[in-house]
Amino acid sequence: MLGERMEREIREQPDALRRVDYFEPLQKALGGRDFDMVLLAARGSSDNAALFARYLIEVHLGIPVTLAAPSVLTRYGRKIKYENCLAVGISQSGAAPDVAEVLASLREEGHTTLAITNTAGSRLTQTAEFSVLLEAGLETSIAATKTYSATLRALYEMVRALGAPIAPPVLPDEEDVEAAREAAAKLSGTVVRCSPLFALGRGYGYSTAQETALKLMECALLPCKAFSSADFEHGPKALAGPGSAVISFDGPKPHLESMGTELLVAPFPEVDETSQPFFQVVFGQWLALHAARARGLDPDDARFLRKVTETL
Amino acid sequence: MLGERMEREIREQPDALRRVDYFEPLQKALGGRDFDMVLLAARGSSDNAALFARYLIEVHLGIPVTLAAPSVLTRYGRKIKYENCLAVGISQSGAAPDVAEVLASLREEGHTTLAITNTAGSRLTQTAEFSVLLEAGLETSIAATKTYSATLRALYEMVRALGAPIAPPVLPDEEDVEAAREAAAKLSGTVVRCSPLFALGRGYGYSTAQETALKLMECALLPCKAFSSADFEHGPKALAGPGSAVISFDGPKPHLESMGTELLVAPFPEVDETSQPFFQVVFGQWLALHAARARGLDPDDARFLRKVTETL
Repeated sequence: MLGERMEREIREQPDALRRVDYFEPLQKALGGRDFDMVLLAARGSSDNAALFARYLIEVHLGIPVTLAAPSVLTRYGRKIKYENCLAVGISQSGAAPDVAEVLASLREEGHTTLAITNTAGSRLTQTAEFSVLLEAGLETSIAATKTYSATLRALYEMVRALGAPIAPPVLPDEEDVEAAREAAAKLSGTVVRCSPLFALGRGYGYSTAQETALKLMECALLPCKAFSSADFEHGPKALAGPGSAVISFDGPKPHLESMGTELLVAPFPEVDETSQPFFQVVFGQWLALHAARARGLDPDDARFLRKVTETL
Repeated sequence: MLGERMEREIREQPDALRRVDYFEPLQKALGGRDFDMVLLAARGSSDNAALFARYLIEVHLGIPVTLAAPSVLTRYGRKIKYENCLAVGISQSGAAPDVAEVLASLREEGHTTLAITNTAGSRLTQTAEFSVLLEAGLETSIAATKTYSATLRALYEMVRALGAPIAPPVLPDEEDVEAAREAAAKLSGTVVRCSPLFALGRGYGYSTAQETALKLMECALLPCKAFSSADFEHGPKALAGPGSAVISFDGPKPHLESMGTELLVAPFPEVDETSQPFFQVVFGQWLALHAARARGLDPDDARFLRKVTETL
């Protein structure tokens, strides 16, 4: 079956998300420390997960967050003067050289550094002062699924460890994964038929919109672009209209439907808004997998992609 | 002629870019002040211009930059504890309410606030402590062109006023605008024929990639997505290959050509890398205009778009 490994890994998420408690080691490492800002360094899917953390940190801790532009260091050789900073490098393989370079530089300058990775002994764990191992198990499909949601969880627990007054996250169980599959199966035909595709979200849901767009592109080779729901109104909306489809992680958008756009509204399970990304991303993953299968593509064998990407 | 106003405004850029000296008033307002960080708040094209400023500030001043996520304030009602911060709101209309709210909040907290806008007396100028008026003249096409490049210039001069050891920017003259038109005219057929389209850039050129992708979408209704050249290697590259095209603002990409991707390399005029965006974005604007005309679309009359977009 096409995307067999991806399907297995999507289904492993309830288990992978509960396997270890990231909170305790993170609280031991970071609890009681104050930071003036948080720097998140990541690429690809991990960068999308970082967007979730950005909102959690800014909304619940009130600390400014910056998503690193590694080329400032790796291409232009410039070190930035951060105030007392927590620098977090995120990479499932732990091999991303530019993420490791940013972390090494901040550690050298005396900042606190944390690696979040699925790979013990990887370059990132050797670089950072503290490490969280995702322990999501080996991911064999090229598309990151269980490592993505495990990263979300690790970041959520990091924000709690830093003192955010939020409850532990509500996580999807097997029934939720199946419900997401059914919802996605119903909508995958529209996704395959429409072009261009847009994934919209705001706040906590923005990361899910970005991640779903990336998955639709890499698994199903469908041109999908994510926007914050607000940014979409500033120009790109010109592309909506008959033939196009919007996947909304931000609820109904009647004004887009009235323009003739097909509107796919991702389900909102009855959990706190801060836990929605754990549920909604599963819907996005299934959407990408179903669309890939409908197009006869094997997401376990994406064209020209290697599992570990190295950029400097 | 389709896009007549857009063409006129593209051609007005050499004049609009030289009309006023932003440097002196900015130096008067900001010179000698030190900031621990810079916050840039913007939407749409202005947000793309902000990306240029981000690299200039981090590389030449070593001060961390964050691109605001206005919904932290407007949706979740959270005020972030910034260190001594320069907050810059960018909006050609000066009407963006969420950008103004972010600025108002930072001003109230005692930070330095600056508005960059083309509209005297607009909400943003009333909100910020300091204002730079672009004076680019009325922009009547829906697509921002001369206000975009004028914003780039204002941001560049802001970075100089903050003490960056960079020369005044080299700006395109009428011959440069015509050379960009010719280069774009040759490549617009490929852009219309290929799907999906990708615009790639890194560092200073990343903003141009983002802005070109936005222009191709809003003017020519072509699905184009921008990536940092590094991020593109992490997944989206799966979509490259026969039928697709990459517009590179980052020089040749032979490995993408060898995959069968059409590669359109934006010209690199012989100017400092920091001045390239002023030249390369003109190429991107022409590309979008030519593609729109080839598709029988009028970029002066984009579907469903209003000139001023209000989001909260």
